[in-house]
Amino acid sequence: MRIHIQNPPDDPAFTITPALWDEAAARAGAVAAGHHVTFAADPAGFAAAIGAAEALIGDKDVLRPLLAAPAPSPRPPALRLVFVTNAGLDNLAPFDWLPPGAMLLNNSGTHATKAGEFGLMAVLMLASNIPAMVTDQRAGVWRKRWGRSVAGERLTVIGLGALGAAVASQAARLGMEVTGVRARPAPHPACVRVVGPDALDRVLPESTFLMLACPLTPATRGLLDRRRIFLLPRGAGVANIGRGGLLDQAALCDALEAGHLSGAVLDVFDPEPIPPGDRAWTTPNLIVSPHTAADDPATYLPNSLDIFFNNLCAIAAGQPPPNRFDPARGY
Amino acid sequence: MRIHIQNPPDDPAFTITPALWDEAAARAGAVAAGHHVTFAADPAGFAAAIGAAEALIGDKDVLRPLLAAPAPSPRPPALRLVFVTNAGLDNLAPFDWLPPGAMLLNNSGTHATKAGEFGLMAVLMLASNIPAMVTDQRAGVWRKRWGRSVAGERLTVIGLGALGAAVASQAARLGMEVTGVRARPAPHPACVRVVGPDALDRVLPESTFLMLACPLTPATRGLLDRRRIFLLPRGAGVANIGRGGLLDQAALCDALEAGHLSGAVLDVFDPEPIPPGDRAWTTPNLIVSPHTAADDPATYLPNSLDIFFNNLCAIAAGQPPPNRFDPARGY
Repeated sequence: MRIHIQNPPDDPAFTITPALWDEAAARAGAVAAGHHVTFAADPAGFAAAIGAAEALIGDKDVLRPLLAAPAPSPRPPALRLVFVTNAGLDNLAPFDWLPPGAMLLNNSGTHATKAGEFGLMAVLMLASNIPAMVTDQRAGVWRKRWGRSVAGERLTVIGLGALGAAVASQAARLGMEVTGVRARPAPHPACVRVVGPDALDRVLPESTFLMLACPLTPATRGLLDRRRIFLLPRGAGVANIGRGGLLDQAALCDALEAGHLSGAVLDVFDPEPIPPGDRAWTTPNLIVSPHTAADDPATYLPNSLDIFFNNLCAIAAGQPPPNRFDPARGY
Repeated sequence: MRIHIQNPPDDPAFTITPALWDEAAARAGAVAAGHHVTFAADPAGFAAAIGAAEALIGDKDVLRPLLAAPAPSPRPPALRLVFVTNAGLDNLAPFDWLPPGAMLLNNSGTHATKAGEFGLMAVLMLASNIPAMVTDQRAGVWRKRWGRSVAGERLTVIGLGALGAAVASQAARLGMEVTGVRARPAPHPACVRVVGPDALDRVLPESTFLMLACPLTPATRGLLDRRRIFLLPRGAGVANIGRGGLLDQAALCDALEAGHLSGAVLDVFDPEPIPPGDRAWTTPNLIVSPHTAADDPATYLPNSLDIFFNNLCAIAAGQPPPNRFDPARGY
């Protein structure tokens, strides 16, 4: 197969080098042998390779402008597999740049370890009132704010994909009572219960901690709206490692200012970057993480390539590749 | 036994009520039966009870002024057991207020769960660069600072008492390589190695994360001095849940400002509260927690009373009580 890897023009930490490729290929074995691989980091390199490429690998922010209409015109004729090295592909929509019959793979799974640790950290920060302490520190105020152990406390995780499942597992290991919410409910070993989105309004009033970890789709946009934020019990804490568009950011800031929520740890925003002067910078008891929760440069690219080869194995065996992205569904 | 409980005058969250006592006594069984128990929250109540009290229970900040010279004079004649509901008793020294032959018990153990969770949180915050992100947020700056998964990373924990052991165990469960440092080294299940203080200078250059969790004694005061802070590798992170006096706070701030350390999460300071205008409030990449890391009001007093009765059991059985505090050693 002719595989083209399009790297970012200026980000060595996220550049797939021939050496990284060879190491991953060695781990993958037979399925990685016999391919013709090209690497580029500029539009000229992309243009030279895309006409013959059967598979394309790259970050969505790198691929999007290159794939956007009117270019490439005509559609890449040989392309049948696109592996985007991101988990959430919401801002690649609409997917009309994808040749009919070409398969889209996302990178779900590579983020699980780091995101699980970040999610656990966020819940522990909320339980120890770190967001409020940081606000106190900004004002030079020494004020005891007693926290609590999370063992036995209630955490609701919206989304049980790779990220949400990792957070749920970490929280369950500390003895938390985890409720999962997902589109198609099914029992999960880290959750005492898993419910569908229709049960969300019933679950929220019993959630001391709420973690958003689902993809952004037409069905989830604005999921945590103002009404639902105020369905959470007074003193609850909210974390978001999914997408900024999942929640009503203004309503969340209102709830923090009013003391209805005790704290928030947000890794994602709408828009990003947060504009200068936006109230997210200064809202009390709100911690801003600049969309880095799930990324660990030391393991990101090796994990990504392992996921790619794992999907090639599935395709070679005639099985559905685990990372196949459904443009209609949005994840 | 005549047991007197001296409560804080104004802190319901940390008041041992007769109801709490009765619940703990019911859990403890026979060893809790037959005692004459008095409760007070003011100096008059203390004065009325201390003359006959054989056992005394209270927070160190409550007991210190009541026990300080010249009062009580003469020394409490019947007193033979003092249970201080704190783990670190450094600021009760000198211990000349203790009648000769009276036994001092500390509250080591009640903090373990919350402190272990806080310690894990602090390490995860350092690994995700939260201290630097909070500093960026203060300045309204959106800057990606890639973190890392802690699995396989090196954490050194100084002190393997109840707090340090709890942190080490939590970190080991996430796959960290934990080195323990303690006065009397012995293998520990959460640590890949345990060394004595004489090996500290050898261990520090290999410590990506450093956790201080030991008591403050003449031997540990200033343990992490300027020279040792700069023995840590560039980019290391430091957390302190022990005592402020364990480290050179000015040198730590210098190391953060110089970028030698990537972050610090401190729960303890010297002095406390941090004075207005102190640079600890504004040093970049430094998170201030107001000495609340180990406290969980929901479980603190029940756990404390369980520990007290557990020690009564040991004494009744003629065994050394596990919480006996050695004034000469300082823990």
